[in-house]
Amino acid sequence: MAIIKSPLSKGARKVTGAALQGALADLVDLSLVGKQAHWNVYGRNFRSLHLQLDEIVDAARLAADTVAERAVTIGLSPDGRAGTVASDTGLPAIKDGQLTDSDVIAYFVDAYAGVIERMRARVDETAEADPVTQDVLIGITGELEKQYWMLQAEQG
Amino acid sequence: MAIIKSPLSKGARKVTGAALQGALADLVDLSLVGKQAHWNVYGRNFRSLHLQLDEIVDAARLAADTVAERAVTIGLSPDGRAGTVASDTGLPAIKDGQLTDSDVIAYFVDAYAGVIERMRARVDETAEADPVTQDVLIGITGELEKQYWMLQAEQG
Amino acid sequence: MAIIKSPLSKGARKVTGAALQGALADLVDLSLVGKQAHWNVYGRNFRSLHLQLDEIVDAARLAADTVAERAVTIGLSPDGRAGTVASDTGLPAIKDGQLTDSDVIAYFVDAYAGVIERMRARVDETAEADPVTQDVLIGITGELEKQYWMLQAEQG
Amino acid sequence: MAIIKSPLSKGARKVTGAALQGALADLVDLSLVGKQAHWNVYGRNFRSLHLQLDEIVDAARLAADTVAERAVTIGLSPDGRAGTVASDTGLPAIKDGQLTDSDVIAYFVDAYAGVIERMRARVDETAEADPVTQDVLIGITGELEKQYWMLQAEQG
Amino acid sequence: MAIIKSPLSKGARKVTGAALQGALADLVDLSLVGKQAHWNVYGRNFRSLHLQLDEIVDAARLAADTVAERAVTIGLSPDGRAGTVASDTGLPAIKDGQLTDSDVIAYFVDAYAGVIERMRARVDETAEADPVTQDVLIGITGELEKQYWMLQAEQG
Amino acid sequence: MAIIKSPLSKGARKVTGAALQGALADLVDLSLVGKQAHWNVYGRNFRSLHLQLDEIVDAARLAADTVAERAVTIGLSPDGRAGTVASDTGLPAIKDGQLTDSDVIAYFVDAYAGVIERMRARVDETAEADPVTQDVLIGITGELEKQYWMLQAEQG
Amino acid sequence: MAIIKSPLSKGARKVTGAALQGALADLVDLSLVGKQAHWNVYGRNFRSLHLQLDEIVDAARLAADTVAERAVTIGLSPDGRAGTVASDTGLPAIKDGQLTDSDVIAYFVDAYAGVIERMRARVDETAEADPVTQDVLIGITGELEKQYWMLQAEQG
Amino acid sequence: MAIIKSPLSKGARKVTGAALQGALADLVDLSLVGKQAHWNVYGRNFRSLHLQLDEIVDAARLAADTVAERAVTIGLSPDGRAGTVASDTGLPAIKDGQLTDSDVIAYFVDAYAGVIERMRARVDETAEADPVTQDVLIGITGELEKQYWMLQAEQG
Amino acid sequence: MAIIKSPLSKGARKVTGAALQGALADLVDLSLVGKQAHWNVYGRNFRSLHLQLDEIVDAARLAADTVAERAVTIGLSPDGRAGTVASDTGLPAIKDGQLTDSDVIAYFVDAYAGVIERMRARVDETAEADPVTQDVLIGITGELEKQYWMLQAEQG
Amino acid sequence: MAIIKSPLSKGARKVTGAALQGALADLVDLSLVGKQAHWNVYGRNFRSLHLQLDEIVDAARLAADTVAERAVTIGLSPDGRAGTVASDTGLPAIKDGQLTDSDVIAYFVDAYAGVIERMRARVDETAEADPVTQDVLIGITGELEKQYWMLQAEQG
Amino acid sequence: MAIIKSPLSKGARKVTGAALQGALADLVDLSLVGKQAHWNVYGRNFRSLHLQLDEIVDAARLAADTVAERAVTIGLSPDGRAGTVASDTGLPAIKDGQLTDSDVIAYFVDAYAGVIERMRARVDETAEADPVTQDVLIGITGELEKQYWMLQAEQG
Amino acid sequence: MAIIKSPLSKGARKVTGAALQGALADLVDLSLVGKQAHWNVYGRNFRSLHLQLDEIVDAARLAADTVAERAVTIGLSPDGRAGTVASDTGLPAIKDGQLTDSDVIAYFVDAYAGVIERMRARVDETAEADPVTQDVLIGITGELEKQYWMLQAEQG
Repeated sequence: MAIIKSPLSKGARKVTGAALQGALADLVDLSLVGKQAHWNVYGRNFRSLHLQLDEIVDAARLAADTVAERAVTIGLSPDGRAGTVASDTGLPAIKDGQLTDSDVIAYFVDAYAGVIERMRARVDETAEADPVTQDVLIGITGELEKQYWMLQAEQG
Repeated sequence: MAIIKSPLSKGARKVTGAALQGALADLVDLSLVGKQAHWNVYGRNFRSLHLQLDEIVDAARLAADTVAERAVTIGLSPDGRAGTVASDTGLPAIKDGQLTDSDVIAYFVDAYAGVIERMRARVDETAEADPVTQDVLIGITGELEKQYWMLQAEQG
Repeated sequence: MAIIKSPLSKGARKVTGAALQGALADLVDLSLVGKQAHWNVYGRNFRSLHLQLDEIVDAARLAADTVAERAVTIGLSPDGRAGTVASDTGLPAIKDGQLTDSDVIAYFVDAYAGVIERMRARVDETAEADPVTQDVLIGITGELEKQYWMLQAEQG
Repeated sequence: MAIIKSPLSKGARKVTGAALQGALADLVDLSLVGKQAHWNVYGRNFRSLHLQLDEIVDAARLAADTVAERAVTIGLSPDGRAGTVASDTGLPAIKDGQLTDSDVIAYFVDAYAGVIERMRARVDETAEADPVTQDVLIGITGELEKQYWMLQAEQG
Repeated sequence: MAIIKSPLSKGARKVTGAALQGALADLVDLSLVGKQAHWNVYGRNFRSLHLQLDEIVDAARLAADTVAERAVTIGLSPDGRAGTVASDTGLPAIKDGQLTDSDVIAYFVDAYAGVIERMRARVDETAEADPVTQDVLIGITGELEKQYWMLQAEQG
Repeated sequence: MAIIKSPLSKGARKVTGAALQGALADLVDLSLVGKQAHWNVYGRNFRSLHLQLDEIVDAARLAADTVAERAVTIGLSPDGRAGTVASDTGLPAIKDGQLTDSDVIAYFVDAYAGVIERMRARVDETAEADPVTQDVLIGITGELEKQYWMLQAEQG
Repeated sequence: MAIIKSPLSKGARKVTGAALQGALADLVDLSLVGKQAHWNVYGRNFRSLHLQLDEIVDAARLAADTVAERAVTIGLSPDGRAGTVASDTGLPAIKDGQLTDSDVIAYFVDAYAGVIERMRARVDETAEADPVTQDVLIGITGELEKQYWMLQAEQG
Repeated sequence: MAIIKSPLSKGARKVTGAALQGALADLVDLSLVGKQAHWNVYGRNFRSLHLQLDEIVDAARLAADTVAERAVTIGLSPDGRAGTVASDTGLPAIKDGQLTDSDVIAYFVDAYAGVIERMRARVDETAEADPVTQDVLIGITGELEKQYWMLQAEQG
Repeated sequence: MAIIKSPLSKGARKVTGAALQGALADLVDLSLVGKQAHWNVYGRNFRSLHLQLDEIVDAARLAADTVAERAVTIGLSPDGRAGTVASDTGLPAIKDGQLTDSDVIAYFVDAYAGVIERMRARVDETAEADPVTQDVLIGITGELEKQYWMLQAEQG
Repeated sequence: MAIIKSPLSKGARKVTGAALQGALADLVDLSLVGKQAHWNVYGRNFRSLHLQLDEIVDAARLAADTVAERAVTIGLSPDGRAGTVASDTGLPAIKDGQLTDSDVIAYFVDAYAGVIERMRARVDETAEADPVTQDVLIGITGELEKQYWMLQAEQG
Repeated sequence: MAIIKSPLSKGARKVTGAALQGALADLVDLSLVGKQAHWNVYGRNFRSLHLQLDEIVDAARLAADTVAERAVTIGLSPDGRAGTVASDTGLPAIKDGQLTDSDVIAYFVDAYAGVIERMRARVDETAEADPVTQDVLIGITGELEKQYWMLQAEQG
Repeated sequence: MAIIKSPLSKGARKVTGAALQGALADLVDLSLVGKQAHWNVYGRNFRSLHLQLDEIVDAARLAADTVAERAVTIGLSPDGRAGTVASDTGLPAIKDGQLTDSDVIAYFVDAYAGVIERMRARVDETAEADPVTQDVLIGITGELEKQYWMLQAEQG
């Protein structure tokens, strides 16, 4: 087993690792439900949402990769496997089958509200433990909040 | 509910749909285990594998998107949610935690062998039902087989 | 007169040539009605459709060029002149003057249904006569069917 | 019906509209005969002409789009459908079947002579009615005249 | 003080300068209200308008820069400061706070109608005084009129 | 009215909103006086300053957009209209007419000193209220301070 | 020795392997005679042919690489060494020394006729044995036939 | 001799041709003296001027090409040979040997003043004879005047 | 002497300046030993390390530049001269002559451990003194820690 | 006067300077006659030559710039003014008016023969005096000789 | 037969031509064995070598093209046909079938040793006969020697 | 220890190696003092010099890398560590702290004079020993001399 020397103390690593693993499950799931909606949406706003959802997926994938690599960097092993994501995600379930454009927006407004709340808690939890990780989480939270605004604005 | 008029007959759609949904579960899972290994691998060949795994992930994501959109196109609703992927994937389980470079190669050689066998069966099953879908599956299979060769070649 | 030696037998060339010339008339007309709608559409979804129609036009032009060059390649002379297109197209007439966004979507859903049906018949007809041409037609049909899904999805 | 408020008076709009619709028919047809020759030309200068004709087509498509959008902008509805182009074009008929390189050059030298004469008349007619449209037509005329020179120069 | 030798006579410079300074106030303000709406719009068409408004802002900024540099070129000193823009703009006031998508379109249709009318007057006024400036203003007017059409078309 | 659910408490939102609106007025004004100087500067260093001022304008526009979108994101409505900027900006007045290169540098050295002081205060004020906003403001402040150094260095 | 597990049965692999190795010899040789003519051609059409021959070389190299990697993928070892190519190629010998433009075209028209005939046979032979390989060969054949048309068209 | 059919009458062609040939001599010479100064300048502003002079040269070369091709287009034969340029240019002589930065600016301010005066006369002369040529000359004049401003501004 | 007005108080500037100058010596030296190893490494992993070391060098150069410009920005004068770097660097000495791939990895794992420890101390020291500098150092530390993980992972 | 300290002795500078100034006159003139032919050529090969001549012009301009800057670098002042070029060029006179494609090729074959002979003499002359200049001249000579081959090859 | 007038005397041409033809055989063969190994290599370093071999192939193809075109330029006819390459190459035979990564490196270290020795002899032989050709050969030799170092370094 | 087989004899390698190691120390130091001045310069020409110094640094880094890799290629081990550079550089010491623009130019004019003199000696020394290395050094010397001219020209 490779011994990655953590720049963090054992306690700091535990706190930080929990925040990062939680974020990872949320973000991988966000990328999967984003694609699910990208494929199954229909309605007058189909084309606009179809494109917007791919931007959401791209951002979520990038953020998940950043978060997971930060976890390895501090000496932990991230888990982004389908089963883990399915059980650990904080996102609400998205129903299968076709989805109207209104339903898609409503689902993501709801999902983002939860993710952002959890991300803000993670920002708080890591402030003391690891300012480098906190800075990464702040950046991702800011991006998620911007997408949240846009989704709400589309609800009219 | 949007009525997507399928260019296929009911029977052809059923056969084709099953092939596409099976491929989707395999390919989404391939993208997830690819990232899992991208993060957790270590060993003398770390850097080369770390880069190669991102190419595997990119190709799997692209193929999954193609397959899912083909399913909608023929009037079905693809399912690429974490829970569905976890239960329907044909890939072997990948263990959590750190992974040696040899273990990663061995895992993927094993995983590709299975995916390719299932993809070849899907190519056969769709030949009659829908030549357009079959052509898509042939292209993806060729790409997977090429990656399979490279992984085997790396085993030395 | 240049003697282009056809890689096909006389019979195969005749069957294949008819499929290609039919596809050419449909595809050139699709590019012209696409532009007609691009200019004359109005309504709440104006901007989204205006952009989407240019993608339809670009794809139709590219496909028409591929189909016509395939015809020359097998020793025939494609005809994509305005008069020929006007008389040989299988597309429904599009009315002149301004067009509402709903009318545009309805027109193209109808037009694509017909084009795809004819393209699928051409795929069948060329299977024996020329697998190279068939492969070209399969690729174009897949693309048209994807656009057809998106137009239907926008109908809500 | 969308009421596009014209920046022009009724009389100016009529004069300008006629010039733009005439230009549109000529330019769409130029793009179609350009492709027709691109596919059917043969002879020692095949390759050079094949490439040059695609430049002619690209320029004609761009100019047609500019002219049609200018028509909508002043409150009119442009018509670029195959039937309208076939009946309203000022271009000479191009024969079907294969075309020698010399015939292609001779045809386009002839065709450009006519288009340019009509474009220059349109430049004069719109001078008073709408300087913005006139400026657009001057730019297109300059481009057409440059291509006309090159075609003549190739006749040797 | 730098003596920029004007290529224009004193009278021509005065007439031209007035046209350019008027255009500058309108165009800088257009870029500011464009951003204001870009930030504050909401409604079903949020995303499409949000993107379209940035195109409006980009075009207005580019045109303002062109107009201001033309003013310096003929020996005058353009004024694009916030206070000057606020007092000299011909645009209607845009209300503060959130804006529905319909309100945004209605506002800009109204604003463009006025700007275009003033730009056309400036085109007339500079015809004699300076054909170079007139040509610049004609180009900008054509672009504004095209955007005006699109906004009207979106009103349905 | 769209209800953008703020990720902040009412108190935090008020503090953060004031900081963002203040920054917005400063930054929009900075982009306007930057252009004003870009057009009116003269002197031996004209060309270098003319180019540098466009970089200042680009950075200010980007920062203003970031700040305004952050305001919407936390549930407020940013105001970047000409009149608001003219009255709320903290920048010193820039005189109209031509500006020597030395005057331009002196003006911006003075202006940056003030903006930076206010930005640092805003960084302090938002530390508790919203770390995401604070991180955004820190990034912008760092960029402004770098430009401030360069302007001072040019004073010799 | 690395054991590349073939996705094909022993019989299918033998048939497919023979088709691929034959194609490899033809395509590598095509790239070599293409360069030979690129260097030694002269005549009125020198420049056009000099450029066209590089396109032929690029396409042949790409196709050779695809074919060889497909061979490894199915568990065989491709042979593209100079001696093997010299003995196994199906192309006619090209004479050494300078070549007139007419001779070059005549040579390649002849060479392409043979290559295409052999490629079409390979397409037939692999239909049953391996649809993935067949699809690859169909794509290459279509490209070769298009180049064949152009060379014939240049003969006038 | 190739007979380029002029779109202009004999009288209009004579007037327009004289304007274009005069502009050509000025513009080719401007590109040559621009390079002469680019190589021989020295002084505190060396680097800025060295770069600016290359922009002047690029613009002059582009304008010369446009003007010469316009001449061929209307059926005349442009003359840009060194001897013709040396005798027909309207630019003042530039001294040989090293040039101080101040001398370079002074020379070009003087040279541009003359070129612009002649270009404005050519704009007037071609107004009636050929609006297409006039439009080309107006564009070039606007660009030259902008460069003239910048050179004057650098004189401080 | 140019008086760069520091946005920091005298005390804050001293603390921050020490952190930045220390980081500068470390980072410039990291870029130099990175190149030293890039040139002198050998062994089975030569190529992979050779490429990786250039990425390390690029990142170190970029970070050094950022850190040095931040120092000037707060009114100090950074020192990155060879002698200063040689005496002030915290990196262990790297031996001259050829280096095995294992030695290179071992050296950099050791070197990064030290740099990161010092960077984390600098992050702590600047928290109060200057949040802008701290944010810069946090970003660089995160990047260094990521490279540290990769080097450790390669040790197997 | 700027004292450029020459890296060469007085004698070496004189020999080298003469070679460079001679090359400059030839190369500037080559760029001018290249454009002259680019504009005035006609005949069956018009298009190919028109494009080829622009490549000749681009290469000649680049080489002239290199040669002139090398002259300044060794402490001399290059002269590339129209009058100097007209009197000092070694190129044969090119006749005014239209030029057939055959005449153009014949002229340039003749012109290149002379330029190359003079360039080879300059390569010899500078061998001792300045190896840096000689290396520059060798590179330019190689490029000129390659173009000379192509022109001869086109003569058939 | 085209008479390419050689810039070299008969004797110099003979010496130079022999050097160039020898280099051509070596370099074309290097590109072929490079691809042969690219396809057939396996082992732990497969991926790194697979990529590196394509760089070797690209460089060899580029050098072969340069060398062959230099031969035509001096009035000779290069021969790069498969048979000629097979008989004239100085490279050792590479065995058919799969190749271990160690074998590949050993083969190329051996092959490069020979090529470089022959290239250095060619550099000597052409010094007097043609400095332009010598300069080309020096550049290629430098590149080959750099690749030779890297291959040796990988042997560990 | 890796045995890099040198293409040079022992004597030639010693001479060449000394020249390369000397050049390496000079060039690495040039890149370090270039950055030192890039950060610490101030004065009216700050911006121009700040940019120019980065070009000097980029060129010096590139040249250092070329020189060092050439050393390894001939079987030696280059040394570019801070301590070695500090002791072996031929450049004059640059003072710490802020630097006026005039001081910077004066310093680099002085520094370049020395580097160029040493580089010219190295060109002479390697002529016999290794023409490949000499060619590399000639290219770098030419580039340095060009920069030297520009720095002198800026002194006015």
